[in-house]
Amino acid sequence: MRTRLPELPPDVTASAARRVMIRCDELARVTAAPGRIERVYLSTEHARVNRLAAEWMRELGMMTSQDAAGNQIGRLAAADPDAPAILLGSHLDTVPDAGRFDGIVGVLMALEVVRLLRVPATSGHVSPFPFALEVIAFADEEGTRFGTALLGSSAVAGSWNDAWWDLTDADGITLREAFREFGLDPGRVGEAARRPDDLVAYLEAHIEQGPELDRRGESLAVVSSIASARRFQLVVEGESRHAGGTPYDMRRDALLGASEAALAVERICRGEHHVIGTVGRLEAFPGAVNVVPGEAHLSLDLRAEHDGDRDRVWHEISAEIDAIMGRRRLRWHARGVHTAPALRCAPLLQDVVREGIVAALPDGSDLPATIFSRAGHDGMAMGAVTDVGMLFLRNPDGISHHPDEAVSGDDVERGIRALAEAVAHLAAEPRP
Amino acid sequence: MRTRLPELPPDVTASAARRVMIRCDELARVTAAPGRIERVYLSTEHARVNRLAAEWMRELGMMTSQDAAGNQIGRLAAADPDAPAILLGSHLDTVPDAGRFDGIVGVLMALEVVRLLRVPATSGHVSPFPFALEVIAFADEEGTRFGTALLGSSAVAGSWNDAWWDLTDADGITLREAFREFGLDPGRVGEAARRPDDLVAYLEAHIEQGPELDRRGESLAVVSSIASARRFQLVVEGESRHAGGTPYDMRRDALLGASEAALAVERICRGEHHVIGTVGRLEAFPGAVNVVPGEAHLSLDLRAEHDGDRDRVWHEISAEIDAIMGRRRLRWHARGVHTAPALRCAPLLQDVVREGIVAALPDGSDLPATIFSRAGHDGMAMGAVTDVGMLFLRNPDGISHHPDEAVSGDDVERGIRALAEAVAHLAAEPRP
Repeated sequence: MRTRLPELPPDVTASAARRVMIRCDELARVTAAPGRIERVYLSTEHARVNRLAAEWMRELGMMTSQDAAGNQIGRLAAADPDAPAILLGSHLDTVPDAGRFDGIVGVLMALEVVRLLRVPATSGHVSPFPFALEVIAFADEEGTRFGTALLGSSAVAGSWNDAWWDLTDADGITLREAFREFGLDPGRVGEAARRPDDLVAYLEAHIEQGPELDRRGESLAVVSSIASARRFQLVVEGESRHAGGTPYDMRRDALLGASEAALAVERICRGEHHVIGTVGRLEAFPGAVNVVPGEAHLSLDLRAEHDGDRDRVWHEISAEIDAIMGRRRLRWHARGVHTAPALRCAPLLQDVVREGIVAALPDGSDLPATIFSRAGHDGMAMGAVTDVGMLFLRNPDGISHHPDEAVSGDDVERGIRALAEAVAHLAAEPRP
Repeated sequence: MRTRLPELPPDVTASAARRVMIRCDELARVTAAPGRIERVYLSTEHARVNRLAAEWMRELGMMTSQDAAGNQIGRLAAADPDAPAILLGSHLDTVPDAGRFDGIVGVLMALEVVRLLRVPATSGHVSPFPFALEVIAFADEEGTRFGTALLGSSAVAGSWNDAWWDLTDADGITLREAFREFGLDPGRVGEAARRPDDLVAYLEAHIEQGPELDRRGESLAVVSSIASARRFQLVVEGESRHAGGTPYDMRRDALLGASEAALAVERICRGEHHVIGTVGRLEAFPGAVNVVPGEAHLSLDLRAEHDGDRDRVWHEISAEIDAIMGRRRLRWHARGVHTAPALRCAPLLQDVVREGIVAALPDGSDLPATIFSRAGHDGMAMGAVTDVGMLFLRNPDGISHHPDEAVSGDDVERGIRALAEAVAHLAAEPRP
């Protein structure tokens, strides 16, 4: 059993990083929107990237399967075919008009880690550890299509919620219908769930999606925990009236109420240190230039380091929206579409990730930073079934969910080394 | 020549009003949106209501034609086939999720006026006056599809603007393409223009689209003038960022800038007596729950009694939006998509409409109100080619551009009488 890998030759890790960058470009071309990147759950693009990932997995000697929720999985068995697995991965779905790295780079780095670690056997390759090595490409992390995030990892974690079946996309297609159109059986989604005994841990590399590492001038960080999150869909109801003929005292303009609500979210969250709130969608109905809007829909995304802060701020925002709508004679209601408690990365996994980063950086480098993820990740769901560890890569200027999203090939190379080292360290730890 | 019509039998006008109400229901069923009313320019619904209107025109013995801009016209000739026409009408297009009377009732009342006034001749029916009687159903008053209003009446008035050809609808179809798909030749739109010599006047009956008559408890009013209007499409540009990872000091949130702008429009216009501003559309892009919006689009509709007030308020709003966007490090620009000066109804036509209302109301009624239209109407465009007169019908609670839009059958009956009387008075006036 090795606690540290033999020195990885620089040309090998450099070519691994190059392959990751080239494949990020290749996946970026699988999109529903020409000229932009958009790949959502249960779409033809989802099917296409799963096929690509499966091909790359098989190339490494992995057994492949698509699970009952549409996640793509590759497995490199250990000598004992029933040995539990160290699960590496991230997601391949995107937001609309996305960058090419969020999620994707983590899946591709995991494949390179398998390539570096696998050992030849009589019938192909096997894991060098008493554990299988698995790579998972989650199919829905962003929640772009159905408004509810982490559908893929929730299925794997056994936390699927049957209330989700009736969620609809922008075209009114339910999640249930989309499953069937994709060729999946909604009645079998439970088969995607993994048993805790089958997994050693879930380890994920991801771009930071924030400016912290870039501001520090560092490549990699250990993640201490993933933000607590709640998402809501808010509906404001007033009355549609003719824009010319209706004096202000007779108007009940839902768009103006929604605008005040969006500004209230900003005002309240700016006063908080560890809570951030975003209104990403706002739409007025009927949406005609000459009609006072009778209805408005808006989304609210709240994130916090601690669940208590998050809920206290939501309470404060609700009270403020009540006051706004009362003044404007509007009605409103909110539907919670996603709740995730803050997830603490397992201390052991924080340690092995830290050791991995140290091994990957030049001797004499500072100890790597340990930072908190404001963004949500599949680990939030995976925490229900196994221990979670995360490694962050520097994200220049913190730009993510945007075509300008970037990561450097050098940082990806360091990240691959660090992740491979972390896996080796983890495999060497005594199991309870 | 009659200056006052022979007494119109009550059963005749009552059945005319009933026919109008039944036909409003019939037209309401021609819609692009099941369960709601939506009928836009150059759509299949447009073609269907034109065919219905043409049928009803022919039933009255009128010659029918669809003009080069898609307006439906019926003509009842005078003894002299080249005599100029008194043009009656309104529009058949709607806003999204519309009521059933705005525009429609004016076209249908005009048909009933023709039915009351026409006289039998050897070959069917003719106008009783030395003028032809025409009814026009304008095809685009609301501007729902292309964002620019009065396309139908602008063509008739000879004010078509070739810059409009590149306007696009929500699906990216240009006005030019939509013309061709409808079977119209864009190169021949000029043929829809009428010569001033061919027209005596344009007279329109319309629901008030405001609460004034309802508050006064009166059925009908003379319209003194139609509001001055300007419409803009505003674009706010910031930067799309990940909602979790981006601290407030790094955000340039276009949706929050747009929300502040919408509230500024309300604040500034509330302080004005004769100007009203409405933001009817607001949309954020990319529109994902977990992305800080990098762009927002909003519409602005400004109306005023006087052009000068309207432009002064737009200047004030622009300055305020400049300040908002400056504070938020956002860029913005506005594109004017519609401008119409205030239109004064011709004094002679105000007089004949007033005489018509007096004749239609019980003896001893108060003199009818003369009110100003805050809503735009086809008369704004028609003023470029002929004199314009308008008659308003009470609109309960002032609700318009909404499924609850209403008008009573009794008021429609009084309106038909008043409009018929007004036409007879006008026809009896000495022509210069």
